[in-house]
Amino acid sequence: MPVELNATAPDFARRFEAMVRAKRDAEADVSAVVAGIIADVRKRGDAVLHELNQKYDQVDSTRLGLRISQAEIDAAAAQVDAATMAALETAAERIRLFHARQKPADDFYTDAEGVKLGHRWTPLDAVGLYVPGGKAAYPSSVLMNAVPAVVAGVRRVVVAVPTPGGELNPLVMAALKLAGVTEAYRMGGAQAVAALAYGTETIRPVDKITGPGNSFVVTAKRMVFGQVGIDNPAGPSEILVVADAKNDPAWIAADLLSQAEHDEVAQSVLITDDAAFAGRVGAAVRQQLSTMPRSAIATASWERFGALITVPQLADAVPLVDAIAPEHLELAIDDPQVLAARVRHAGAIFLGRHTPEAVGDYVAGPNHVLPTAGAARFASGLNLLDFMKRTTLVQCDQASLDRIGPAAVRLAEAEGLHGHALSVSIRLNKGAS
Amino acid sequence: MPVELNATAPDFARRFEAMVRAKRDAEADVSAVVAGIIADVRKRGDAVLHELNQKYDQVDSTRLGLRISQAEIDAAAAQVDAATMAALETAAERIRLFHARQKPADDFYTDAEGVKLGHRWTPLDAVGLYVPGGKAAYPSSVLMNAVPAVVAGVRRVVVAVPTPGGELNPLVMAALKLAGVTEAYRMGGAQAVAALAYGTETIRPVDKITGPGNSFVVTAKRMVFGQVGIDNPAGPSEILVVADAKNDPAWIAADLLSQAEHDEVAQSVLITDDAAFAGRVGAAVRQQLSTMPRSAIATASWERFGALITVPQLADAVPLVDAIAPEHLELAIDDPQVLAARVRHAGAIFLGRHTPEAVGDYVAGPNHVLPTAGAARFASGLNLLDFMKRTTLVQCDQASLDRIGPAAVRLAEAEGLHGHALSVSIRLNKGAS
Repeated sequence: MPVELNATAPDFARRFEAMVRAKRDAEADVSAVVAGIIADVRKRGDAVLHELNQKYDQVDSTRLGLRISQAEIDAAAAQVDAATMAALETAAERIRLFHARQKPADDFYTDAEGVKLGHRWTPLDAVGLYVPGGKAAYPSSVLMNAVPAVVAGVRRVVVAVPTPGGELNPLVMAALKLAGVTEAYRMGGAQAVAALAYGTETIRPVDKITGPGNSFVVTAKRMVFGQVGIDNPAGPSEILVVADAKNDPAWIAADLLSQAEHDEVAQSVLITDDAAFAGRVGAAVRQQLSTMPRSAIATASWERFGALITVPQLADAVPLVDAIAPEHLELAIDDPQVLAARVRHAGAIFLGRHTPEAVGDYVAGPNHVLPTAGAARFASGLNLLDFMKRTTLVQCDQASLDRIGPAAVRLAEAEGLHGHALSVSIRLNKGAS
Repeated sequence: MPVELNATAPDFARRFEAMVRAKRDAEADVSAVVAGIIADVRKRGDAVLHELNQKYDQVDSTRLGLRISQAEIDAAAAQVDAATMAALETAAERIRLFHARQKPADDFYTDAEGVKLGHRWTPLDAVGLYVPGGKAAYPSSVLMNAVPAVVAGVRRVVVAVPTPGGELNPLVMAALKLAGVTEAYRMGGAQAVAALAYGTETIRPVDKITGPGNSFVVTAKRMVFGQVGIDNPAGPSEILVVADAKNDPAWIAADLLSQAEHDEVAQSVLITDDAAFAGRVGAAVRQQLSTMPRSAIATASWERFGALITVPQLADAVPLVDAIAPEHLELAIDDPQVLAARVRHAGAIFLGRHTPEAVGDYVAGPNHVLPTAGAARFASGLNLLDFMKRTTLVQCDQASLDRIGPAAVRLAEAEGLHGHALSVSIRLNKGAS
């Protein structure tokens, strides 16, 4: 049974805290294995990729080649029916438009002391995108990672995708085409991450690796961090719905279950100001669970991690939202903007009764790669800036250095860094520049 | 002797590659010790901090309190002489002005389908800043970390600083005052990081931890990542100077040594288009090394990791710069903007003959916390966005959901996520919203 909490109950704080702190993600410790694979790829390169393709995916990549050819991509993508292809195009285009608005501005100005300074943004040269194989291969995730990289101006977007049994996932290949990705390799696991980070005979290294994966992939990404950049770690999905009694309980139940069906350790939470409504949503959840295709997964998630919370007033939801810092926050209430403005921590907010979270998973435009497990307190969802970096610029002339330089000399001396001081003082008061 | 390379020599590519790849940073593996300390702090809280203060710093914090009182901060800061205080004020104010320009814009708009969407930026609630004790306690680093956090709107900026022998560093305390930090604790090492991440009886947890530290601190930060955010790992400092023969060799030598004096594993590299000038700089370095106070450190760095590289033309420096992706790039040449525009990877660029890198360490305004060891390929220096996070917003009404929802339903079905599909389809075509 899901937890049912009432904010006016005497033990509420303790039980709410226990719910927030419940660790759902038990990542297997595979570091020794992964460290061995990374070292092996660095030493033997392509050979390791071929061996592990054969071993885990029964794929002979010595014959097929590691690179997935454009003809293969095209042939697989051609299997996607027209309606689904049109939906993928809609998604790609809306993601493109949303992320294109995020292009950051450069800035270069002259300040009161005559110093010219500012910053500029440039795209990364090369990004590797890990795409899980088999059932967890979601074309929507390919679009959410690859499209922003392309929009940012990344020249090389490289995809690693395992191909169990040699099969290419048509939806994934179609998503690659729509995103404009042409460089893809059949490889998976820690060995794929190592190949992207360090390169092999066939694969030139990249500068950053993004995308979801199993514990081998996640562990490998952590280990190559520094050699390349990585994205934030992603835990199991979560949704927090704040809803009043004016909602159709079936709509809210569907929203809760849209996350619960992801994963047995996903979490779906309702906060409402009406205990009777909470009961109706609970009943609707039970009814939908009985018919939904992924019922076993969703039931496990809902029974173990689901929660129905009643608060005296909707405004009382705000501190609970911030304590959870949810990945997805749905505000199915009147005037959702008012409450949204008071929330400090959430990865993404879905406003009003007609914005189910799932619309954001596919076609709304904002990224669906979002901070989980409370990381919205300090992290952002994937966005254009994840594929760019910022360089600062400073230019003094003789006059402006004469103005600000003495303070630098003083501080360098105070820190005992006389070489720093000398590099400034040697240039001071030398006349017109 | 530093490496001397000429780009026209037959073995240049190999020797340059070896120089770029040379691993300078050999971080000790202290993970077992650190994991034990973190677990202990989570279990026993303040008691661990007191015990380790006594053990490592001979400080009785049960008597003094973990919190450094405002009176203590004020008394220590009062020991700083007026000229140094004025220089710190100049630095703080220039850092404040530069970072205040980085406030990111929110965006909320209605698109062609009638969907309202956008994003907003909010500051983190609480940030912990680690300040090393003893000689490595640089007030400039305190300003570079704390001022941007305050400018971003972070409500709680919390400092952890070990106090060997019980002494407070007057310069650090003055920097705290100027940055507006009032919450500081005497504690250091992995235990301080654990206390900031998880909290203790005395210390409320923070959401992100920044600032430099030794291998215990760095390892602890990596281990608490996820519970809190952390900044990018920082390796030994580096400078790459591109200079023509019109420069005074002594100026360029001083710039190279300003980094070499940081650390025996710092790296200073000159690229010039004039082999004779390279020789003059080498001679000037030797001369300055003989008189500079930190000669032993700077000599070790220069002998082991220094390099003088001659290229046929200054334009030939560009691919070498990008291969190194230096933390600091100085362009002591005519029209530095032209070459700067062609460089893709650098943490910070110092333009022209009157902009020694050290001016950026203290008073220029841009942050001196910058990506090292080639991380400028994918990472940015510390900036305002490191203390903020981004929430995306989406709002459909009945009409706009009817337009974009069907594509979401199609993709959810294609991915086998029927619960996702239901949460959208249940709302479609219900008439006026």
